[in-house]
Amino acid sequence: MTVISAHAADRLLESIHRLRAPVCVGLDPVVERFPAALRNEAVLSAPIAIEQFSHELLSAVAAHVPCVKVQSACYERYGSEGVAALERTIARAKELGLEVILDAKRGDISVSAAHYAAAAFNHGHADWLTLHGYLGEDSLEPFLHHGCGGFVLVRTSNAGGDQIQELRLADGRTIAEAVGDLTAALGRRVLGLSGYSALGAVVGATRPETAKRLRERMPEQIFLVPGYGAQGGGVDDVLPCFKSDGTGAIVTASRSVVYAFNAADPNWTHTVEEAAAAFADEIGRAVGWR
Amino acid sequence: MTVISAHAADRLLESIHRLRAPVCVGLDPVVERFPAALRNEAVLSAPIAIEQFSHELLSAVAAHVPCVKVQSACYERYGSEGVAALERTIARAKELGLEVILDAKRGDISVSAAHYAAAAFNHGHADWLTLHGYLGEDSLEPFLHHGCGGFVLVRTSNAGGDQIQELRLADGRTIAEAVGDLTAALGRRVLGLSGYSALGAVVGATRPETAKRLRERMPEQIFLVPGYGAQGGGVDDVLPCFKSDGTGAIVTASRSVVYAFNAADPNWTHTVEEAAAAFADEIGRAVGWR
Repeated sequence: MTVISAHAADRLLESIHRLRAPVCVGLDPVVERFPAALRNEAVLSAPIAIEQFSHELLSAVAAHVPCVKVQSACYERYGSEGVAALERTIARAKELGLEVILDAKRGDISVSAAHYAAAAFNHGHADWLTLHGYLGEDSLEPFLHHGCGGFVLVRTSNAGGDQIQELRLADGRTIAEAVGDLTAALGRRVLGLSGYSALGAVVGATRPETAKRLRERMPEQIFLVPGYGAQGGGVDDVLPCFKSDGTGAIVTASRSVVYAFNAADPNWTHTVEEAAAAFADEIGRAVGWR
Repeated sequence: MTVISAHAADRLLESIHRLRAPVCVGLDPVVERFPAALRNEAVLSAPIAIEQFSHELLSAVAAHVPCVKVQSACYERYGSEGVAALERTIARAKELGLEVILDAKRGDISVSAAHYAAAAFNHGHADWLTLHGYLGEDSLEPFLHHGCGGFVLVRTSNAGGDQIQELRLADGRTIAEAVGDLTAALGRRVLGLSGYSALGAVVGATRPETAKRLRERMPEQIFLVPGYGAQGGGVDDVLPCFKSDGTGAIVTASRSVVYAFNAADPNWTHTVEEAAAAFADEIGRAVGWR
């Protein structure tokens, strides 16, 4: 009998441990990068093509990684049909036993936040949702009552991330650290048996020293770590996001796995599967689990 | 012949001038607050009921206000069916000649931001979209190429808004002021003939002195001003968001107009219409246009 934990952090950690791979594959389906075979489908219906691409991709990676991060924008751009494709994609991922992070970066307050939680967790069946913290506690608290979890955007890996996040406060902290402190304080209300919180943090793999400081300030947060691979981050950049026992972070890669093939490749799903296995092995070894 | 301006700010200002009412009604449809007649509909299908409520509401307010703000979360909570209802609601608002702000508070970078722009403007036909600025310029710039506009969340009116936005930087600015400065700098790239930018700012009506400072820092931004009415802001709180000529801001009210009726009211649309007319008159007079 498999016991499925009711706490988002415990469940995610169990999945990571089972595969010995603290990694996540990011699904960012864009028609322009599809394999040739699927491009024809996309001419007829882009939402159907992105759904088919998503399903084939999930099947290719499910044996190798514990978790997928689904980029909501890629589906939403096709309106209600795209959202229907998103819902079926998440349902398929759950059938395959994957943990699902819905990367929708929601950030609204009170009733509206509760609506977004309902959309993501009740209607969409995701396990985690990425969140903006700029509106304060009011925009995070409504996500803590669903047996699901949130990752607050603390320090992102994009070039413009510095413009706001690295500004220095009068008290010596950066803005990212202030958002991290808010996340840590609020997250303490929803600790799992593992000691980790259902409120995690997005911390990009581009500044090891920044990650190290944030790791110290947020001991109970699982870090969702983008920026590895295509965005330039390497193993040395992601390691500071982990604790010494190899827990505490999950590294996410999108393009370097999802578009590992070239368009003419007839065995593109096999190429993706190899890339996912290699990525899992690389990070699994780096943290000492393989 | 009516000439419709291709620039979002010019178009919004023209609409405001025509009605002499710098106001916006916020559509936040929640089934629990519906008139009794529509509650039965909601039992059968919540998305159909919220769409019907939205359409009746738009018809009730269209003669009195230039603009509506549609809360995306209220529709998204019903998944793809809800998003279909949202799309038809926006289409109806456009048929009625209303300017439409999609209040979806999106905040993502590069390709994902471009997807959200496509979802809101090409697929959804909104004129404006509310935006998070925490990820910096990368998360705002992709919204500037559509003849449409964005309102960056600078200073929100919710209780928890202080927690991050009012923190003091080493250089003396608050975080809200830093986000305001980023908005002003970027917004300069997309000025209309009116002198106002297609990149505006959300500035809540809860702290007149804060609004006054932000007005000085962002001379070319139209302020979208929530917090009036149900959230406690009054005329004196919103006036500092305007320039002395009565331009530069649009005050938005949701609950105090949309739920002005009581559930048993058989003429609830008439009650909403009266509330919208009174709201437009109140703000129109306050800025000296009526």
